[in-house]
Amino acid sequence: MAKILDGKEVAAALKDELVAEVDRLRKQGITPGLCLVMAGSRPDSQSYINSAVKRCSSIGIDCRVKKLPEDVTQGDFLKIIDDLNTDPKINGIMVMRPLPQYISENTIKYKISPEKDVDCLNPINVSKVISGDDDGFAPCTPAAVIEILDYYGIKVEGKRTVVIGRSMVVGRPLAMMLLARNATVTICHTRTRNLAEETKKGEILIAAAGKAKMVTKDMVSNGAVVIDVGINFDESGKMCGDVDFDSVCPIASSITPVPGGVGAVTSTVLAKHVIEALKLQKGIY
Amino acid sequence: MAKILDGKEVAAALKDELVAEVDRLRKQGITPGLCLVMAGSRPDSQSYINSAVKRCSSIGIDCRVKKLPEDVTQGDFLKIIDDLNTDPKINGIMVMRPLPQYISENTIKYKISPEKDVDCLNPINVSKVISGDDDGFAPCTPAAVIEILDYYGIKVEGKRTVVIGRSMVVGRPLAMMLLARNATVTICHTRTRNLAEETKKGEILIAAAGKAKMVTKDMVSNGAVVIDVGINFDESGKMCGDVDFDSVCPIASSITPVPGGVGAVTSTVLAKHVIEALKLQKGIY
Repeated sequence: MAKILDGKEVAAALKDELVAEVDRLRKQGITPGLCLVMAGSRPDSQSYINSAVKRCSSIGIDCRVKKLPEDVTQGDFLKIIDDLNTDPKINGIMVMRPLPQYISENTIKYKISPEKDVDCLNPINVSKVISGDDDGFAPCTPAAVIEILDYYGIKVEGKRTVVIGRSMVVGRPLAMMLLARNATVTICHTRTRNLAEETKKGEILIAAAGKAKMVTKDMVSNGAVVIDVGINFDESGKMCGDVDFDSVCPIASSITPVPGGVGAVTSTVLAKHVIEALKLQKGIY
Repeated sequence: MAKILDGKEVAAALKDELVAEVDRLRKQGITPGLCLVMAGSRPDSQSYINSAVKRCSSIGIDCRVKKLPEDVTQGDFLKIIDDLNTDPKINGIMVMRPLPQYISENTIKYKISPEKDVDCLNPINVSKVISGDDDGFAPCTPAAVIEILDYYGIKVEGKRTVVIGRSMVVGRPLAMMLLARNATVTICHTRTRNLAEETKKGEILIAAAGKAKMVTKDMVSNGAVVIDVGINFDESGKMCGDVDFDSVCPIASSITPVPGGVGAVTSTVLAKHVIEALKLQKGIY
């Protein structure tokens, strides 16, 4: 049976570091501040915000939530981003996606200050992640995957690493982050022929397809490290990942569960990014 | 023996289209303009400029070359970029790299107007290439690879495509451009273990490693499409690619030669980008 890569344990260890860091900053009279911006009332966005606020507050970050009506105009939305960009108490801004219908993500992403863009919406941060520059912000979810690999000492260098999924939120940036760590990276997706053949080549297999239990036993090679980024709900309404955990667990060398895997780390990574943003803005090293 | 993918033929066909396009624009009283900026006196940069000016001029583009001393200051360099950004006669700007020692590429890349950035230096264009937005500019070399594949009707969708090399000028953007065309993409590099094992999996194999003749027969599967991006010189000073052409040619289904392959297409792609830039700036569709 695979070793369980416990996201809660990773998050707890990271939290300890961050609490100590925030304490040091507070002694200098500085408190990191985060604003989460949500337009509309999607339950998944609300649920993410609740857990992010709880986590970040427990680390000592001042959290603000800006809730906007579903029919907010683009002009009003941009004004709010502008205000947050110049607000000295706010170090990190996170805009919940998907955005409602009247708001163009393509416009918002250019507006959010790159230095406060803690979830990598702005193209400048996208470009930094792609080119391997460390002074930008990666999206929180792929960054959480890297935290888990690092915490458990799983080296990616030179390893055949297969990523299923090519979204701008997970698959593509994650592939580039693994490449920067010298993995040999393959990106698979819905148009990949013989998906199982490709995924079986992965010494490290990362599922970010957004499809419940789609990675089955016959798609995983013996002894692979399996990281499950999916958050889905099965027929009975129970949360599950992209990996069919019960069938894959016996053959993997290690695996992240859902819940309690990658998802358990993302809000702590968000806190880490807010603290990094503050230090960047204040010139603290 | 492999079919030869003839870069000169691809470039000639593309040139015909562009000449017709420039003629249409001239009838509206508009001439596209390109400025190539070179600091210092690297022979490879000079040679690129000579061929780019010759090619672009023959298509009807007004070409200007801005030569700067090796010891140009950052301030003077930025001033020149600023002037070109606002010069209505210049639609495309290409800065020769590598830059000389006193100039920070990291500063220049943010300065060059994304709308005139015909070789994808600005992070906004990098981000567009990564996310598959068609309204940015890809770097000319990977775009030339795509032109060759398209010209010869080589479909990449669903195919195992292996890219050797992960530079920001070729490997990474090319991998993302192939991904946008639904290829299953693997990126290999100097840290890849068992490189031959990986490259043999490629139905399409693209060498962009910058190492003379490093792709040998034993690294290529029978019937693979082989695209050689390398421009190197062998022991006897003769130009060669990253692929050992003589040994690979008999087993590939098709192959680009060096010279006369990818390199023969890049300056025509540059002309294409300048014309696209003009249309973008003038709102012509």
